[in-house]
Amino acid sequence: MGERRFDLIGIDGDDTLWHNERDYVEAREHFARVIARCGVVIDQEDLTEAINRTELQNIQYHGYGVSSFVLSLIETAIRLTDGRIAGRDIAELLALAKSMLTSEVELFEGAREALQALSGEYSLALITKGDLLHQRSKLERSGLSPYFRHVEVVSHKTPEVYRTILERHGIEPSRFLMVGNSPRSDILPVLGLGGAAVYVPAPLSWSHEHDEVPSGDGSSCVVLRSLLDLPATVRAWRS
Amino acid sequence: MGERRFDLIGIDGDDTLWHNERDYVEAREHFARVIARCGVVIDQEDLTEAINRTELQNIQYHGYGVSSFVLSLIETAIRLTDGRIAGRDIAELLALAKSMLTSEVELFEGAREALQALSGEYSLALITKGDLLHQRSKLERSGLSPYFRHVEVVSHKTPEVYRTILERHGIEPSRFLMVGNSPRSDILPVLGLGGAAVYVPAPLSWSHEHDEVPSGDGSSCVVLRSLLDLPATVRAWRS
Repeated sequence: MGERRFDLIGIDGDDTLWHNERDYVEAREHFARVIARCGVVIDQEDLTEAINRTELQNIQYHGYGVSSFVLSLIETAIRLTDGRIAGRDIAELLALAKSMLTSEVELFEGAREALQALSGEYSLALITKGDLLHQRSKLERSGLSPYFRHVEVVSHKTPEVYRTILERHGIEPSRFLMVGNSPRSDILPVLGLGGAAVYVPAPLSWSHEHDEVPSGDGSSCVVLRSLLDLPATVRAWRS
Repeated sequence: MGERRFDLIGIDGDDTLWHNERDYVEAREHFARVIARCGVVIDQEDLTEAINRTELQNIQYHGYGVSSFVLSLIETAIRLTDGRIAGRDIAELLALAKSMLTSEVELFEGAREALQALSGEYSLALITKGDLLHQRSKLERSGLSPYFRHVEVVSHKTPEVYRTILERHGIEPSRFLMVGNSPRSDILPVLGLGGAAVYVPAPLSWSHEHDEVPSGDGSSCVVLRSLLDLPATVRAWRS
């Protein structure tokens, strides 16, 4: 076996290792049923748009994660019903959040196998955006915790944030590989620093994001359809 | 000037450097007015008890911080009003949270001066419990950010958490000093590891917590009434 090509491999959690967006889709459908009971009927697309707008405004206050999401649901429900929604309906939204926070974490195909194979040869770091408590709880529930040497829960995934993480661990950017499903958060900032990246589009994000990533010969980015191929891809990486 | 006694000084944020509990007291008073409008009149002590109980149950889901607090207020309001509280009253609780998250951070007497004096001679780390985003935002608003070399936002302040932080920075426990207002979170776990501690009781916690801290000759813990005395205390520290 040759020399290791990377000193650290960062891996994203939500929608890279485990399903996440799907839970939000289901929650928004549940939300539609709650406000329909209050006499507000609105198609799912407009509803998603209304929730997203509230969420975006609330990031500055409540950040990312389920707590922020449910606060945005409550705020959206109050607005859409002109304040008529009753406490007992809001209680249903609170319960929805708790169920999202305790439900089983479902891994993508090949996630466990890839981590198992790579963790014997490489230092792995979970580098994930969101709420500290929720991400740690999800990692525990996922059963993947033993494979990670480091866990980094960050508020944003900017080049600066990656640079700080690499400096703290004493890693040269050229010896760092990031694996994730988001071009904006996982791939582009790392490529910009001179690192390498594996882009694994999630089923729900494939359509609108997959064109944004540089690929082809000479690029330090590889696109994979499944984590099953990750170990072989990492081992065969050419500088 | 002699050799530095400490390689790292950790300092707590909430109710050590800046007011925090006071905002929660005011929020609970506001909450009482909201539910009084729904016909529920309850004395402030029972109300605080009811909110605390909900908060305690919700820590596992939503952690510490303002987002978790407002979710607990909403849940408590729904329970106390038997689901009768209307959306528009809940909107007032949402607004209350946003105002807590953006209001000015008021420092305790001597906080800025102490950090200014110590940061020239020592590595300072803010070691604070709570929500990552909220604590970072509070630090920015406080204007104290330039004095800290490190910022550690943690979910719990157990001996294990302190040990991990010290190992990451390569610090011997005996060369670590922690400054804070909570015996359970800031003082006892650090003394247990063999570190030193300065206990600065916050006005609101003074009465019920101040007896729990070991003090007297031979102890590695000092109790201070004000941060004004911190620089001189640190410089005069005897092993």
